[in-house]
Amino acid sequence: MNNLTSWLHEHLLKLNLTEEMDYENGFTRLSYTDEEKQAHKAFQHIAENLQLEVQTDQAGNLWATWNVDKGAPTVAVGSHVDTVSSGGGYDGVAGVLTGLAAIKLLKDQNFTPEKNITIICFASEESARFGVSTIGSKAISGLLDKEDVVDVEDANGITIKQSIESFGLSWETIQHAEREKKDLESFLELHIEQGTQIEDNAAEIGIVRGVACPIRLKVTATGMANHTGTTPMNRRSDAFAAVAPLITFVEEQANLLNEGDSLPLVATVSTGHVSPNVMNVIPGEVELGIDIRSVDDSLKKKLAERIKDFCKEIESNRSVNVDVQTLVDNDSVILDKTIQKKLSAVTDSLTIKPLIMDSGAGHDVMNMAHKWPSGLIFIPCENGISHHPREYASLEDLAKGTKVIAEYLRVETGEHA
Amino acid sequence: MNNLTSWLHEHLLKLNLTEEMDYENGFTRLSYTDEEKQAHKAFQHIAENLQLEVQTDQAGNLWATWNVDKGAPTVAVGSHVDTVSSGGGYDGVAGVLTGLAAIKLLKDQNFTPEKNITIICFASEESARFGVSTIGSKAISGLLDKEDVVDVEDANGITIKQSIESFGLSWETIQHAEREKKDLESFLELHIEQGTQIEDNAAEIGIVRGVACPIRLKVTATGMANHTGTTPMNRRSDAFAAVAPLITFVEEQANLLNEGDSLPLVATVSTGHVSPNVMNVIPGEVELGIDIRSVDDSLKKKLAERIKDFCKEIESNRSVNVDVQTLVDNDSVILDKTIQKKLSAVTDSLTIKPLIMDSGAGHDVMNMAHKWPSGLIFIPCENGISHHPREYASLEDLAKGTKVIAEYLRVETGEHA
Repeated sequence: MNNLTSWLHEHLLKLNLTEEMDYENGFTRLSYTDEEKQAHKAFQHIAENLQLEVQTDQAGNLWATWNVDKGAPTVAVGSHVDTVSSGGGYDGVAGVLTGLAAIKLLKDQNFTPEKNITIICFASEESARFGVSTIGSKAISGLLDKEDVVDVEDANGITIKQSIESFGLSWETIQHAEREKKDLESFLELHIEQGTQIEDNAAEIGIVRGVACPIRLKVTATGMANHTGTTPMNRRSDAFAAVAPLITFVEEQANLLNEGDSLPLVATVSTGHVSPNVMNVIPGEVELGIDIRSVDDSLKKKLAERIKDFCKEIESNRSVNVDVQTLVDNDSVILDKTIQKKLSAVTDSLTIKPLIMDSGAGHDVMNMAHKWPSGLIFIPCENGISHHPREYASLEDLAKGTKVIAEYLRVETGEHA
Repeated sequence: MNNLTSWLHEHLLKLNLTEEMDYENGFTRLSYTDEEKQAHKAFQHIAENLQLEVQTDQAGNLWATWNVDKGAPTVAVGSHVDTVSSGGGYDGVAGVLTGLAAIKLLKDQNFTPEKNITIICFASEESARFGVSTIGSKAISGLLDKEDVVDVEDANGITIKQSIESFGLSWETIQHAEREKKDLESFLELHIEQGTQIEDNAAEIGIVRGVACPIRLKVTATGMANHTGTTPMNRRSDAFAAVAPLITFVEEQANLLNEGDSLPLVATVSTGHVSPNVMNVIPGEVELGIDIRSVDDSLKKKLAERIKDFCKEIESNRSVNVDVQTLVDNDSVILDKTIQKKLSAVTDSLTIKPLIMDSGAGHDVMNMAHKWPSGLIFIPCENGISHHPREYASLEDLAKGTKVIAEYLRVETGEHA
């Protein structure tokens, strides 16, 4: 290992609070737990060793800043260190680690920026504990609606409010974490891809155009529960048999819409609840959850409409009611085109092959982009596996990501930037 | 109301431990609970008022006997009084009630049988509490395998053994409830249809040829759980999308097999479990439960084979594994043809229109038929609704059932019978 990859390896372990990566059991650092706090302390320790000034804001985000001039603009880079239950050691950590490594590279090269550079370690990005994601970056961007989440509880009945207070913060002041537009000039996040497009396209790094936020539908088919043995086939209102073709339809239509359009769309019937779900009773009610994503919002809406029409068809052909409810319909987030161009120039100069792509998953950058020009780059992760102990990104890819961030920061904060 | 229907109404209420039928909340008398015990006491009280001798056996079954001659054969009639959770007031009760009412009719008419007649109130017919059905009639017929059920628990962790002992019985002696072949001459059960075939065929009563026992299959499709947003459509192993056509296939094939055959078949995908069943993860595993019934066992097996072939097709077309496990494959129970003929003659003589039909549900008679010539008659229940508070059979239909049983007993136990 060279100097950079060995630094990355050493600090990957530190941020994961481990002496060896555990691809068997993975890592569990849920939002606002002591485990997240320990990883924050590791971040702070590494940042201070790099002579960065570390501050914690009212939402628990850490800001590790290379202050050169109070009057100069600040360029931000960052991601998170919390995880899902038994998650991997790279989701979030990769972005924080490469951000810090980029500072080390620049310092090793005796670079002196003309703008301040800050590495943000966002608090509580994963929704695994509370069903609410990206709490830290929402607070910074002014997107956190406290009233919406005050009563949300984890599996043990602990509210967000309680967890924040036992994290050493005050629920009363969490919204003061919001920063003004002028406080930052731009934001860049690096994340593992959680997919295989970079590899599939024989590229080395992803430059992301937009983050595809989902439309989520809940389809409820209601028939009539009845005895499986005594109800003849022609006297049934079987909710499961009625709604089954919809599962096939969603996949077919997603494939069809991908053929005609340049921006990809994905759609999944990801949840199913059958009621009463016992062997000798015909299903009286079936609930399906559908997740539709594309950076092209019109494409998402087109599929949602087709699904609604298909459900009406089912209703008219069978003795069931089919109700379609829209749970979520968030417009996708288009990232800053200028930053994308700069990142392309950077990868060209480093002869790293980029793939211009979209993100199907949400990240902290989604919130930051509401207020500041923002960019997102992906590094490959093996077989696209993520939120899983086997999640893996190579040190070589982490090093490439570090070089892209460092070069981007050099261009962005250097003389005449 | 005439004499018989008012007697039926009064004693329907008594067996249901109520002063008014409750079609809103229904009745809950789970196996071997105090509620079942109270209904047994009501049965005993009514039987004793009819001058029957009541005995409880080692499995908690009650035998209410019109003893005329210790040396004469005994003809048995019966059903149960336990229910599912929030069940109706007729499933089981109808058979016990009409059996007792038939005795009353015969006594009112000063009939004296030449054989003993016994009305059996079977213990613990429903599987709602322990997942094990017809415990009482299994014990009488010698079909109860104690080892199979000793560890079975209800939702509160109470074992069958514990429940039986708190019911006032001994787990050690429950198998002594078994009766010898010579102890009974024949058995007849009356039950509500729990379907609508009698009504659909403009008949008044059902004479059952056989009880269709199920083949039950568990189909497990295993793909790969992955992020819904980051996994392109062409890189998925979606277990739910893969297995959805099977749900449609089962219904189509059941319809098809009904066209070609005289004995009806029903088949249902009645259960579904999606894993991990969260909105942003592609289903990695889906488990479907399939219930197939016909009195024609070869028809059931034909469909099970077609399902297995279809699952192999899915496997060869998609990147999922599909495993098919046979949970249950019980041969159907063919009832005694002589008793069916006698019942037909009885309905003819009463000018009650019978439908010769099959039973899609299991009943105590299933076990009794393993040892004694046995018969089953159905009375209609409104819209086929059963195991539900709205379960309903009219007093007129209960009266018709009573008359059929009484006339059958008169023929069966009268002079020269």
